[in-house]
Amino acid sequence: MVVFSGDLDKAIAAFIIANGAVSMGHKVTMFFTFWGLNMLRKQHPPKVKKNIVEKMFGFMMPRSAERLTLSKMGMGGLGTVMIKGIMKKKNMNSLPEMIQSALYNGVQIQTCQMTMDLMGIRKEKLLDEIETVGVATFIHSSDESNATIFI
Amino acid sequence: MVVFSGDLDKAIAAFIIANGAVSMGHKVTMFFTFWGLNMLRKQHPPKVKKNIVEKMFGFMMPRSAERLTLSKMGMGGLGTVMIKGIMKKKNMNSLPEMIQSALYNGVQIQTCQMTMDLMGIRKEKLLDEIETVGVATFIHSSDESNATIFI
Amino acid sequence: MVVFSGDLDKAIAAFIIANGAVSMGHKVTMFFTFWGLNMLRKQHPPKVKKNIVEKMFGFMMPRSAERLTLSKMGMGGLGTVMIKGIMKKKNMNSLPEMIQSALYNGVQIQTCQMTMDLMGIRKEKLLDEIETVGVATFIHSSDESNATIFI
Repeated sequence: MVVFSGDLDKAIAAFIIANGAVSMGHKVTMFFTFWGLNMLRKQHPPKVKKNIVEKMFGFMMPRSAERLTLSKMGMGGLGTVMIKGIMKKKNMNSLPEMIQSALYNGVQIQTCQMTMDLMGIRKEKLLDEIETVGVATFIHSSDESNATIFI
Repeated sequence: MVVFSGDLDKAIAAFIIANGAVSMGHKVTMFFTFWGLNMLRKQHPPKVKKNIVEKMFGFMMPRSAERLTLSKMGMGGLGTVMIKGIMKKKNMNSLPEMIQSALYNGVQIQTCQMTMDLMGIRKEKLLDEIETVGVATFIHSSDESNATIFI
Repeated sequence: MVVFSGDLDKAIAAFIIANGAVSMGHKVTMFFTFWGLNMLRKQHPPKVKKNIVEKMFGFMMPRSAERLTLSKMGMGGLGTVMIKGIMKKKNMNSLPEMIQSALYNGVQIQTCQMTMDLMGIRKEKLLDEIETVGVATFIHSSDESNATIFI
């Protein structure tokens, strides 16, 4: 599974599918690229030295899964608040909980080295359990996999 | 096939692929989740009791395939009108006709139970021929399938 | 691989995966549909006769891979300029170079006949190495393929 998008709704869909598949005994690898990386950022990351462009990206992009927003019905953030409220009321896991649960259940979470270079995201800024790989590793998992989806 | 998006252009692409594949003798299952559900809403649904949040979602989201819009070139709805006009002129089926044709030709259309709970969409509000299933059913069809795409 | 999107970031992701896979000895077919066609337009196309709707589409959509923009962080084009600048600084290929490299390495690039009819894009306006096919051809390649992704 490739997670390209950084939208809350698509992230939820990705982790529901991943957690569902792993609970059914499947091996799941998620390869995070571009905006998808944002949801793996630590909320309180260690300080590292960055150049000015890296700072700009870091500042403008949502830091951590807590801060993603919906792809539709933005309405100044109201749609996002509503969805999170309903999920809580229905006792669904939140996105950060889904990510923890995926890691706990053995979903392999990989990030794209090239995106990290491009956006100036350092490994220390991401959740600790994550492996950084190149596109060849992703293609190799896809070869061995029954289904590959791009979200 | 997972249909996550509620954009007119992506919906058309999804149904062209589905109808093409089924006409070539393939078995096709479409699993509708999140915004994708909107295109399966009845244009004139029966009245049901809803709470306030369900009412808000119901009011803000497009009701039925007639009312989807493009993901690009919105221009206050002009792009959508243009595309529909050209499709008509070229004697292409409209999206509602494509959906009917898919159902008629045996494409299996399933909706995601969890999304319906989340957005407060009741089964009575959706086209009659549709089955409501959980994510495990989708993963199971994907296992048996040659290709799974996420639109 | 289906390329539906016309966003710079998704186009880059598509060609990185395609070029990676082909360099690992895989056979890759990319089927371009809807907005994806824009990146295959020639920057200086020959003049052809068009009707008024075709002219409007041609005028409003980005002509060639040089002119795509990001799906996020538009900021009046600033995000796009930043990404292109970083890619250059890191000695990454630009999108037009990635497309040339894909063609050179034998990635098969196909465009959707129906989209071309719909948007009034003539074959002469697209890069020369490209084949125009119907959806059945795409489904056929997908049948023979280990993984099909929709970008």
